Amino acid sequence: MRIYDIIYKKRNGEKLTKEEISFVIDGYNKAKIPEYQVSAFLMAVYFSGLNDNETFYLTQAMTNSGKVLDLSFLDGPTADKHSTGGVGDGTSLVIAPVLAACDIYVPMMSGRALGHTGGTLDKLEAIPGFNVNLNIKQFIKILKKNKFAMIGQTKEIAPVDKKMYALRDVTATVESIPLICSSIMSKKIAEGAKNILLDVKTGDGAFMSDYKKAKILAKKMVETGKKFGRNMTAVISDMDSPLGNQIGNSLEVIQTIEVLKNNIKNDFYDLCIELSALTIMQTKKAKDIKQARAVAQKAISSGYALEKFIKMIEYQGGNAKVADNYSLLGKAKNEYIIKAQKTGYIGCIQTRQLGICSCMLGAGRLKTEDKIDWTAGITIYKKTGDVVKKGDIVAKLFYNKAAVEPIANAVKEAFKICTIKPKKIKLIKDIII
Amino acid sequence: MRIYDIIYKKRNGEKLTKEEISFVIDGYNKAKIPEYQVSAFLMAVYFSGLNDNETFYLTQAMTNSGKVLDLSFLDGPTADKHSTGGVGDGTSLVIAPVLAACDIYVPMMSGRALGHTGGTLDKLEAIPGFNVNLNIKQFIKILKKNKFAMIGQTKEIAPVDKKMYALRDVTATVESIPLICSSIMSKKIAEGAKNILLDVKTGDGAFMSDYKKAKILAKKMVETGKKFGRNMTAVISDMDSPLGNQIGNSLEVIQTIEVLKNNIKNDFYDLCIELSALTIMQTKKAKDIKQARAVAQKAISSGYALEKFIKMIEYQGGNAKVADNYSLLGKAKNEYIIKAQKTGYIGCIQTRQLGICSCMLGAGRLKTEDKIDWTAGITIYKKTGDVVKKGDIVAKLFYNKAAVEPIANAVKEAFKICTIKPKKIKLIKDIII
Repeated sequence: MRIYDIIYKKRNGEKLTKEEISFVIDGYNKAKIPEYQVSAFLMAVYFSGLNDNETFYLTQAMTNSGKVLDLSFLDGPTADKHSTGGVGDGTSLVIAPVLAACDIYVPMMSGRALGHTGGTLDKLEAIPGFNVNLNIKQFIKILKKNKFAMIGQTKEIAPVDKKMYALRDVTATVESIPLICSSIMSKKIAEGAKNILLDVKTGDGAFMSDYKKAKILAKKMVETGKKFGRNMTAVISDMDSPLGNQIGNSLEVIQTIEVLKNNIKNDFYDLCIELSALTIMQTKKAKDIKQARAVAQKAISSGYALEKFIKMIEYQGGNAKVADNYSLLGKAKNEYIIKAQKTGYIGCIQTRQLGICSCMLGAGRLKTEDKIDWTAGITIYKKTGDVVKKGDIVAKLFYNKAAVEPIANAVKEAFKICTIKPKKIKLIKDIII
Repeated sequence: MRIYDIIYKKRNGEKLTKEEISFVIDGYNKAKIPEYQVSAFLMAVYFSGLNDNETFYLTQAMTNSGKVLDLSFLDGPTADKHSTGGVGDGTSLVIAPVLAACDIYVPMMSGRALGHTGGTLDKLEAIPGFNVNLNIKQFIKILKKNKFAMIGQTKEIAPVDKKMYALRDVTATVESIPLICSSIMSKKIAEGAKNILLDVKTGDGAFMSDYKKAKILAKKMVETGKKFGRNMTAVISDMDSPLGNQIGNSLEVIQTIEVLKNNIKNDFYDLCIELSALTIMQTKKAKDIKQARAVAQKAISSGYALEKFIKMIEYQGGNAKVADNYSLLGKAKNEYIIKAQKTGYIGCIQTRQLGICSCMLGAGRLKTEDKIDWTAGITIYKKTGDVVKKGDIVAKLFYNKAAVEPIANAVKEAFKICTIKPKKIKLIKDIII
């Protein structure tokens, strides 16, 4: 077998066999195939695509580049949840303890902030002392004790993906549905959960802003997961508006705790309940979605999910007192108030722009080596469809070191005020099972 | 400017500017851009194409990666001829001395055998002592004295092409019309001739076997050359049948000398006259194609072209006595006669297969490091359309070391004998100016 022939076949739109795809991935992983051939292969895949079988073979080869966790020894169902990334999208922090409270094991490995979107690991690290860098042994130990743990992908999980993503990132081959699918799914499969829920974001603040493409991606991931024998559910959810009222790491941690204390009922809460309920359905712990929602709500209202969350903080070395004393999370030195410039309705919020602004305030990374300012971010007081009077506070910026004026102007511009009440945004646009 | 953005643009089918294309080529030439980004760029070009302006910019950037010869000091017209490669296609060896005999300077830099096709340099090297590795100074000196010289591309000529071709060769990006065009034209432009004739081969024995694609390539090269202010002519000529009666290096040298002695009038002779005549037209040394043909024929019948050829051999260190004594070229130890297996017409000759057989007899290279056996090859006695009786000799194989049986069978199979007289093949299918 020669890599040249495989590139040539894919370039000509031919289907590749399982052996051919394994040959590429194994060869690349073991550095037997040079990067200039892999990048040509990736570009050929970008143009010619991969069918469902080829995508499965690719995912399988990537999964097998590392360790595949076997969680069958656990005495209950296992579930994992992945979001393709958005602005204010910290639902994992709520969903994981909710499911754990419902006796579902949640072995969750997450990622960091990417571009204008936040990352679960960065949010967790806003909690003083919290350690996301556990090894698999430590991870399993906490999982057994507390039914859930939240860490970063360990180096044993689909290691070729990290290498390949870095190559895609510099060769304009990121935006390929089968490549995105296999990158996400290889890690999810290797992490071992039997039930997988995917939250594919669409709209202005999502990576896959186009709804049709988001749906194709969701279907492809569901099909791929099924071929591995996993229970798969994907939702396509809105990212044309930031989720919830907080963007930024400690701000989102506070919102999480408030939701777990049953004090907040915003769209962030709604999505957490829906996604938790869909997972509860997967594990057959409810007979219909209505009952599943009630189970999820109960996990919160009973205080049991919060208890789980606090325990996780303790198990992972964090200061659990933050749950009662938000000041332990620190506070940004400066605030900047954004007011409505006219009376009307919030017609839309440019979500990607808001994500970039939050990043520039210090909540994200402009360069890989940048340090995150945990206390920086944006609180949103008015959401799409809300009535505003000129001078009303629509948002507040929190920052320590940023040059705030241009950012404040961009935030101001992101809130589009109009005279006609906009159509209500549907939070979940589609469910694929 | 970032290479990522340029790959991204081309991937999305956008047009690139002159500056962007220069950035890629200069960066690659100076090893500032890694090969994994260049190969992704090349694959994006393979799929998205380049328009005439982009192809010109690419050719220009590649030309400017090295030295551009200025031949304006010569006291007559300058002409160059390039063939995209075929089987038995040694017309350069005749055309160059014919044009020189017509007072046209021919600064010719050629290539080596590639795959199933022969190479001008290898044929010249079949002449004992002949040196194709002259530097530009020596080349110009001979050009001034004898009006023509034939050497290999020096390292000063479009150096980035060599590097890029090697990368294309291992990343399945060879078969891209704009990339083929810029590879050929960058060298032709750098070599400095004002008049350029391109012989684009089509049919079974050509690299671009598809006629339509060959025509697109021819047009693209003509357009590109014009943008550099050169007089351009391209012919699309037949390679569905081997050209002439000889395949192999010394065999083709003998055929060349016989043509220059005015002893052979086969299709190889016809093509040499046509291509010479078209160049004579370019230089305005004849008022119409009929007169131009007569001028070319006269260069041969007068013996002046042969005289020029003999002088070139001498100037380039070869033994010019070969012209009168072919045994100085050596002779293969073994011969193998191929006979017609039935009576009928030669319906067609599988040209690519014959090229591969000649290569396997020792006349070409299966691997880059292989040494060529100058005396190996195939003489063809019967051509497409000829009547054959069962047992007639159709071809003779010459070899020293090859395992001849399987090759002989393949040659036998390459001659398709049928009962109906086939349509006459048109040697020149199209002319593009």
